[in-house]
Amino acid sequence: MDRLIEAIENTQNPSVVGLDPTEALVPPQVVASFADEVRDSVETPEELPAAQLAVAYFEFNRTIIDAVADIVPAVKPQIAMYEALGPAGVDVYTMTCEYAAQQGLYVLGDVKRGDIGSTAAAYAHHLSGVGTGAGVDAATGDDAADNGESVVFDPWHEDAVTVNPYLGTDGITPFVEAATAADKDIFVLVRTSNPSSSELQMLDLADGTKVYEHVADLVEGWGAETRGRHGYSRVGAVVGATHPEEGRALRARMPHTFFLVPGYGAQGGTVQDVAGMFDERGGGAIVNSSRGIIGAWRKSGKYDASMSADDALDLVAESARQAALDMRDALRVAVYR
Amino acid sequence: MDRLIEAIENTQNPSVVGLDPTEALVPPQVVASFADEVRDSVETPEELPAAQLAVAYFEFNRTIIDAVADIVPAVKPQIAMYEALGPAGVDVYTMTCEYAAQQGLYVLGDVKRGDIGSTAAAYAHHLSGVGTGAGVDAATGDDAADNGESVVFDPWHEDAVTVNPYLGTDGITPFVEAATAADKDIFVLVRTSNPSSSELQMLDLADGTKVYEHVADLVEGWGAETRGRHGYSRVGAVVGATHPEEGRALRARMPHTFFLVPGYGAQGGTVQDVAGMFDERGGGAIVNSSRGIIGAWRKSGKYDASMSADDALDLVAESARQAALDMRDALRVAVYR
Repeated sequence: MDRLIEAIENTQNPSVVGLDPTEALVPPQVVASFADEVRDSVETPEELPAAQLAVAYFEFNRTIIDAVADIVPAVKPQIAMYEALGPAGVDVYTMTCEYAAQQGLYVLGDVKRGDIGSTAAAYAHHLSGVGTGAGVDAATGDDAADNGESVVFDPWHEDAVTVNPYLGTDGITPFVEAATAADKDIFVLVRTSNPSSSELQMLDLADGTKVYEHVADLVEGWGAETRGRHGYSRVGAVVGATHPEEGRALRARMPHTFFLVPGYGAQGGTVQDVAGMFDERGGGAIVNSSRGIIGAWRKSGKYDASMSADDALDLVAESARQAALDMRDALRVAVYR
Repeated sequence: MDRLIEAIENTQNPSVVGLDPTEALVPPQVVASFADEVRDSVETPEELPAAQLAVAYFEFNRTIIDAVADIVPAVKPQIAMYEALGPAGVDVYTMTCEYAAQQGLYVLGDVKRGDIGSTAAAYAHHLSGVGTGAGVDAATGDDAADNGESVVFDPWHEDAVTVNPYLGTDGITPFVEAATAADKDIFVLVRTSNPSSSELQMLDLADGTKVYEHVADLVEGWGAETRGRHGYSRVGAVVGATHPEEGRALRARMPHTFFLVPGYGAQGGTVQDVAGMFDERGGGAIVNSSRGIIGAWRKSGKYDASMSADDALDLVAESARQAALDMRDALRVAVYR
């Protein structure tokens, strides 16, 4: 987690910009401007809208990244938004990750993968890349994380991914091993920000704890061997901004676990809500905002449907940068006490 | 779930072939035979091994599909194996799904997706496809499953997907809505087949039940409004063959929930282990085997490294078909009592 922590220190900004485009978040003239460009790239007319939107997402993301790269430490593309467009969207997801990494940003891939051990090892190639033997251990014939093998191709360009804990340790270990070998990180879902999250996560266990607390203890253990220079392990936790009390308790319960905090802004979480998820030095957490930043142009009062695509992208950039600065400044006041 | 149930009845075979290729499961001369074909398709030499393997996976899958299409009702590609190769692998995943569907097979996409509500709605496009408006509700600006909207492009070609329950109801509802609109299904992880699955799923709750039983009750409820002609809902459950006692109890606890049973064969589950997961008419479940079928050529005793690629694929086909027939016959004896 050291690379992320140092990027936060360099920018004095514990926030991450969620790159979660939807058609409604991209100015329509930007989408329209790619109509000619994609026409020859598809095999059937039905593919056109998705292909056009995918190209527009990349241009939109590049605009946002350029606007915030010097003031934020990280971006978090949500792969669901790209998978919604099919493989063309997945391509744009990886292009977005690559472009963000080239601009010096830490790239947190919000993929929420999770499976049984042998399959988790395949997913762990998100972090380890594809080796000369395509990531397969030739000696055993087993799929395995490429520990110690020189990586020649990294198709995903992620510095970290989010992972689901429902499968238990053998679904997590391959990710931890791949992260360790590649100097990357993972974030495990502990207490998510959505309303229904309590149905499972808040269940009372017979031993007096709750399910999410049990998961928290597992997460702290999964990271134990991977602590870095700043005291935090490579195994972070996802803790929603919408649960400030539990977040504060988890901060104490998981002293070596870095938090990714979604749910700020559009989902209702406030600066006060997230303050307790930071440690006493103002570290230990990073707060995500997606719509609040990438959709800020819609609330700017300056948008006009007759704008050119270039002018609309300029407005997207200007509005996103201002929203990112506002969030940074609000967090600085609340967190760096 | 009616389409799957009727496909099982037509073949008298409650089994599904897992299309989970790894480099070790594809004869090396098949991979080698694509060296020239992919050379011009990549931008950098580092991409070559992954691109070559991806093409080989498709040829391998097509061979398996052709060999079993008349004797099995369904295939289950595991997307992790394809994501391990990056976007080129994801392309081959969708091509595999499309080819299998064209051969009349029910395609169960093992993607284990799961996220908060608005993001789950984006993932639900795996089932709903991309509408003219690219799947976005233009009225509200919200991403939403395309209920009632005519689908013009289905990039994923899946008839069902697997989903993780850790996020609760609002992470599931978008999938149920998309499945209902498109006459498709989902399978929610309840009791997975892997050794560590007990860490979370078997925890004792304060009310005397276990976590997986609580999830089972949620799953039965999530499907309640979607029951089909055969009494089963569109919301199935994943119940590992390695837990026969719990599987038998779940069968009684979830009378309207169809089971996808992984863990047969290579993971240790036997015909006797899975028998209790079927209902009294021999319905209600489908058993997956991956390596036992697609890797059967390795145990045939007929493989020779000097074989041509075509001969190796013939052996793959012949061995897979025989293994699928053996599994079908074993299940028929145990299940159709």
